[in-house]
Amino acid sequence: MWWNPTIVFFGKGTITKLVEQLSAMGARSVLLLYGGKAVFKNGAYAQLSQALTKAGIAFPEIGGVKSNPRIDKVREAIARVKASPVDAIVPLGGGSVFDSAKAVAAGACYNGDVWDFFEGKAQVQKALPIFGVLTASASSSEVNGIAVVSNPEKEAKVSMNSPLIYPKVSVIDPSLQTSLPERQTVNGGIDIIAHLLERLLDGDEGTEMMDEQGYTLVRSMIRLIPELIEDPKNYEARAEYAWAGAMAHSGFFSCGRAARGDFSSHKLGHTLSLLYDVPHGASLAVMMPAWARHLCEENPVPFARLAENVFDNFDDVSDEEKALSAIESLEDFFREVGAPTTLRELDIPEGDIQKLADNAAKACPFGVLKALNAEDVLEIYKLAY
Amino acid sequence: MWWNPTIVFFGKGTITKLVEQLSAMGARSVLLLYGGKAVFKNGAYAQLSQALTKAGIAFPEIGGVKSNPRIDKVREAIARVKASPVDAIVPLGGGSVFDSAKAVAAGACYNGDVWDFFEGKAQVQKALPIFGVLTASASSSEVNGIAVVSNPEKEAKVSMNSPLIYPKVSVIDPSLQTSLPERQTVNGGIDIIAHLLERLLDGDEGTEMMDEQGYTLVRSMIRLIPELIEDPKNYEARAEYAWAGAMAHSGFFSCGRAARGDFSSHKLGHTLSLLYDVPHGASLAVMMPAWARHLCEENPVPFARLAENVFDNFDDVSDEEKALSAIESLEDFFREVGAPTTLRELDIPEGDIQKLADNAAKACPFGVLKALNAEDVLEIYKLAY
Repeated sequence: MWWNPTIVFFGKGTITKLVEQLSAMGARSVLLLYGGKAVFKNGAYAQLSQALTKAGIAFPEIGGVKSNPRIDKVREAIARVKASPVDAIVPLGGGSVFDSAKAVAAGACYNGDVWDFFEGKAQVQKALPIFGVLTASASSSEVNGIAVVSNPEKEAKVSMNSPLIYPKVSVIDPSLQTSLPERQTVNGGIDIIAHLLERLLDGDEGTEMMDEQGYTLVRSMIRLIPELIEDPKNYEARAEYAWAGAMAHSGFFSCGRAARGDFSSHKLGHTLSLLYDVPHGASLAVMMPAWARHLCEENPVPFARLAENVFDNFDDVSDEEKALSAIESLEDFFREVGAPTTLRELDIPEGDIQKLADNAAKACPFGVLKALNAEDVLEIYKLAY
Repeated sequence: MWWNPTIVFFGKGTITKLVEQLSAMGARSVLLLYGGKAVFKNGAYAQLSQALTKAGIAFPEIGGVKSNPRIDKVREAIARVKASPVDAIVPLGGGSVFDSAKAVAAGACYNGDVWDFFEGKAQVQKALPIFGVLTASASSSEVNGIAVVSNPEKEAKVSMNSPLIYPKVSVIDPSLQTSLPERQTVNGGIDIIAHLLERLLDGDEGTEMMDEQGYTLVRSMIRLIPELIEDPKNYEARAEYAWAGAMAHSGFFSCGRAARGDFSSHKLGHTLSLLYDVPHGASLAVMMPAWARHLCEENPVPFARLAENVFDNFDDVSDEEKALSAIESLEDFFREVGAPTTLRELDIPEGDIQKLADNAAKACPFGVLKALNAEDVLEIYKLAY
């Protein structure tokens, strides 16, 4: 199945399109959700608030959504909406703000606690429409029906999914991203690469045509991240990055794959973010190569294809050698753009490895290329150290 | 803007999914629209009619939709629906049947004559939902909001567009296409290649990332058409062909392009189909190389990129030489798969060239890489002879 109902307005100055759509649906008030001060600096808040005011749409607001967003902030927003209903939720920010908005949109129409959706105790039956403005590309949250939220009390960073929480409209204006700090560009870019590789490396066969398309985007991202480190204001590069960021986890690259992808690296990384608040992209830069090293001896073929499509195309070299070379090249790339590639660099003590493994192993078995058990998970965290 | 609301069920046996969706919306009766006998031979009619019967959904039917579909058949179906209303239109066939269904879906909700939509005299305000089963990939009609219909009285083969005529659900079951005649596989494949190249060759710059993705599909199609001539029952190849066919003209490859593509070859080909009932793909095999030859001296760059990405990647050769070489390679490919590449092979008399040019030139100026005037159009048909 392929389906993606979100209306995307892409390009400079498209915030006004979003407000036109809100007006067209007759919205009179919306909940505006955002994170920190970035939206004031990059001009997004000013553009959006002016357009909403001009259209006569009220916008009570809640700021302070953190990266690795928390369920308590989501609950706060739901309580506000239940007390003073609105016609739509308007996230203004990156993936964390979009993810939170989705949980709010569903939670505001549900009588129980929103965490039920994340635990699979309840399915979304209804949700407020989401009209979002993206200011940091990475998660594809702007064009999917997935929300990932942390619940520190339960030691869980998990996702909810529903066709009802796709944003109705998303604005992707790359010019709002030209002031992103380098670290965020790097982490977001690694997230995008991971979303692509988690499909490309799932071991499915007969996916050549989709793989070729996916690998063009991986190569683009490997070109774009250094270009943006060099010149953060390069609009063309920001635009390509933003479009790749939307496509990567929109579901498009799951098409044709029986299992739709192997998201083990994300699962293993979520534990780092949950327990040590490691930025999402950094967690992937550490965990994806470790996952690959653990699996590549038994399953060299997908990693050999990575070598051929993205790095060097060797002659007379075995798949095993190509696979190892690809993983090394990927780690080299992460290091070159300044990302950590070991738990040590994240200042996570070696003594905590078992704790990490115990947390992640709660979800075992998981994974497609290989279904990981608790022993695999421990081994991977050891390799990541 | 990027938006595509169609729910696609892809794979063997997915017709039942379509009927589930009809049931879910509470449909009690649908108009079933099809072309010739193919749907009885390939099993699609049997599967669909059994599933509809089992679900208790009535399906009055109209067969006989022709390739290069005619407005009179559309009017016949609209009259039937107005006399006996249905809940949805169900095209069962290829692009012609889908295109007709879209015109019926909109025309059945309109008080005037449906041709008004094609002449731009009216905009679609409402349309019945379309739930379609694709049995021949080529046009992407299964995932877009475009319908192309011929009106012989007005000597016009033109399109209507509306967000309201995207199919709500489309089933793409590649196993229904394994019995397609070779000529149709070839013509459909050329249509798919043309939809891709009409974007890739529009002269837009700064579209590198989207171009790379598009060229992977062009290369796939150039591999797949001969594979399917060799072995028409190759399911994997049929599946790749069908997915490329859906993506090519879904709007996805227009993303990032200021003009969204240059559809001159289609416009020039429509005249051949209208006046001589030339199959759509064959008309493109003739007109696209002629269009390219007319433009490549003045604009060699896009054609040189075609050479590099699809055919040979020469060293020390000028863009002009690469461009000519690419056009020759494209023509060679069309010939190898048995498609005509000249008007002469279509038995169109040389004396009719002016008539062709006069018909097509009614739409002048058109085109993006170059805005063609009547003189250009005449010159292109001469080159095509």
